[in-house]
Amino acid sequence: MKLDDLPTPCLVLDRRRLARNLERMASAVATLGIALRPHMKTAKSADVARLARPDGGGLTVSTIAEAEYFLAHGFADIILGTAITPQKLDQVARLNAAGGQIKVVTDDAGMAAAIARHPGAVAALIEIDCGEGRSGLDADDPLLGPIADQLGDRLAGIFAHAGHSYAARDSVTLTAIAMRERQDAARAAQRLRDAGHECPIVSIGSSPTALIPGDVTGITEIRPGVYMFGDLFQAEIGTHGRDDIAVTVLTSVIGRRPAEQRLLIDAGALALSRDRSTETTAHDCGFGLVLDAGGEPSLGASRIVRVWQEHGLVQLDHGNAEGFAIGSRVRIAPNHTCLTSAAHDRYYVVDGGDDVVAVWPRIHGW
Amino acid sequence: MKLDDLPTPCLVLDRRRLARNLERMASAVATLGIALRPHMKTAKSADVARLARPDGGGLTVSTIAEAEYFLAHGFADIILGTAITPQKLDQVARLNAAGGQIKVVTDDAGMAAAIARHPGAVAALIEIDCGEGRSGLDADDPLLGPIADQLGDRLAGIFAHAGHSYAARDSVTLTAIAMRERQDAARAAQRLRDAGHECPIVSIGSSPTALIPGDVTGITEIRPGVYMFGDLFQAEIGTHGRDDIAVTVLTSVIGRRPAEQRLLIDAGALALSRDRSTETTAHDCGFGLVLDAGGEPSLGASRIVRVWQEHGLVQLDHGNAEGFAIGSRVRIAPNHTCLTSAAHDRYYVVDGGDDVVAVWPRIHGW
Repeated sequence: MKLDDLPTPCLVLDRRRLARNLERMASAVATLGIALRPHMKTAKSADVARLARPDGGGLTVSTIAEAEYFLAHGFADIILGTAITPQKLDQVARLNAAGGQIKVVTDDAGMAAAIARHPGAVAALIEIDCGEGRSGLDADDPLLGPIADQLGDRLAGIFAHAGHSYAARDSVTLTAIAMRERQDAARAAQRLRDAGHECPIVSIGSSPTALIPGDVTGITEIRPGVYMFGDLFQAEIGTHGRDDIAVTVLTSVIGRRPAEQRLLIDAGALALSRDRSTETTAHDCGFGLVLDAGGEPSLGASRIVRVWQEHGLVQLDHGNAEGFAIGSRVRIAPNHTCLTSAAHDRYYVVDGGDDVVAVWPRIHGW
Repeated sequence: MKLDDLPTPCLVLDRRRLARNLERMASAVATLGIALRPHMKTAKSADVARLARPDGGGLTVSTIAEAEYFLAHGFADIILGTAITPQKLDQVARLNAAGGQIKVVTDDAGMAAAIARHPGAVAALIEIDCGEGRSGLDADDPLLGPIADQLGDRLAGIFAHAGHSYAARDSVTLTAIAMRERQDAARAAQRLRDAGHECPIVSIGSSPTALIPGDVTGITEIRPGVYMFGDLFQAEIGTHGRDDIAVTVLTSVIGRRPAEQRLLIDAGALALSRDRSTETTAHDCGFGLVLDAGGEPSLGASRIVRVWQEHGLVQLDHGNAEGFAIGSRVRIAPNHTCLTSAAHDRYYVVDGGDDVVAVWPRIHGW
């Protein structure tokens, strides 16, 4: 099967780029001297998980559906990184009774009490806010000790995520965020140990901060995710280069407006998402950057300037709209690969060329 | 099963509101005296299609996957409203060989020639641009005749969509757009008839323009879609009221920031979409308006102010963040129901209360 044979729109995954991205992160984390617990919320694919953790070791997920799926594919050691609720605790306990070692996350005293008294086997990490302000306790919050006491022997460790690393636009800022993520998590863990708790896991990480070298004293593991595929936004903030982006959307030309140098394609808000994250970076790529059918940037800064549900409007930079026949193909590099991939139920895998060497399913929903 | 038993996030469909919306549109279109060909790209559900077209009659779809699905559920008379490509023409021809009467849409002379010479049975409508500028020929475009000639006896009619009706903010503007949609489509059809072509279908419509009374001379059918469920954006532009919104996202509280009157919920960019269409209206609802667990607007202007992949940040207007326990429920009215529904694989159906009276699957992908 060739790319030309595929129905559009669809996701194309370049396995060579994926392998390079995985190797780069594995090497960086090995240099840090801690464990890599890849976050599978981006890829949602057991085939990708087996490459990211060839030993079948620890993963991170963000939904019950992902936990169930990766457990069914042989990955037992999982952290569910989105804060737990009583209902989801029941679901996790059922999965753990079926062989899972799924750990949950909380920053709430009442929830900690519910975890402690749950009849099933569930361990929990306490979430620490290291500056993003989304969720978690301050590392110095007086509630930390009481929550740990509530959890008792179900306390598995400390969990932090510097999601605000995505807002950094220079390496000094990013390094400061990475260091605070490490220091806050380590300090919180030390407070627990000083109070007599075991704290076996001290888990941090985002793709940008995981690549920052330096001191990781007190940290046991790191949880990047988007690094596997990369995207335009991550390229803009320096996590990787544009030619490391492993996932693109293959799409067909369905209309032409030569006088305006515009094309209409069959990838719109569903196939691409409405993510506009490059809007705040040096190169606003609209709803995605237009590559040629081979995935090369021969069309310069051509980009999607508008989307409807199933239509995308391309403003050409290089090239001539009349040169694109109806049905001809282009590929779109996504602003945010997590959201773009989410609408698709499979990856068509290539090794850089136009041969489809594998089809990998991916899951969706909750 | 009760709403409280459902895993979150999930889609809740209020069947009473759906029925009211369907009745209102059916009545308006009956008054116009033309046929209703509902667009199923919003609902993507055979259960909803059976209510919208109880006679099993004509539907509109936007993807091959939708065409295949609705054909498999007994709806043969379908217009695929997204402009056709050679590859998709092959797919449609296969579906038509299996009993479909799927009609395609084009505005391209080369594509018309490909349709004419295709060995399978496929009829086509010529797309007319009535002011949006997305796709289609001007009603007076000299190419109209040659494309009709190319299609020959495969010409099924004229197709227009006033998508720019969504940008109207007053009834005078909206009425002008609706009238032009009708007049342009009718004029294009008359040009074809004057040239000796049959033109059995003259198809127009969007949810806002379908509700405008007045002259529809020359028009045979109308294709609204979002009216079935409604959303905050459609309520803002006056297609319906806020209490007509039939689809909401049921979500659980996973975090609280009482000092800031903020909640964190388990519905984020995937469960809600990143659509921000109310941003340009009188009431910016962020990424969605927060309703109580019963779907009532008792929380005032509380809204989602930020989303991450699986997290939504609620800024409370009424109410107290401390009053929401971890795991308690709220419901989110969506900005754009087509995009919000797309991430979910089923509807949990209620009749206004908290009993789940049915579970209706919906499809996704292409």
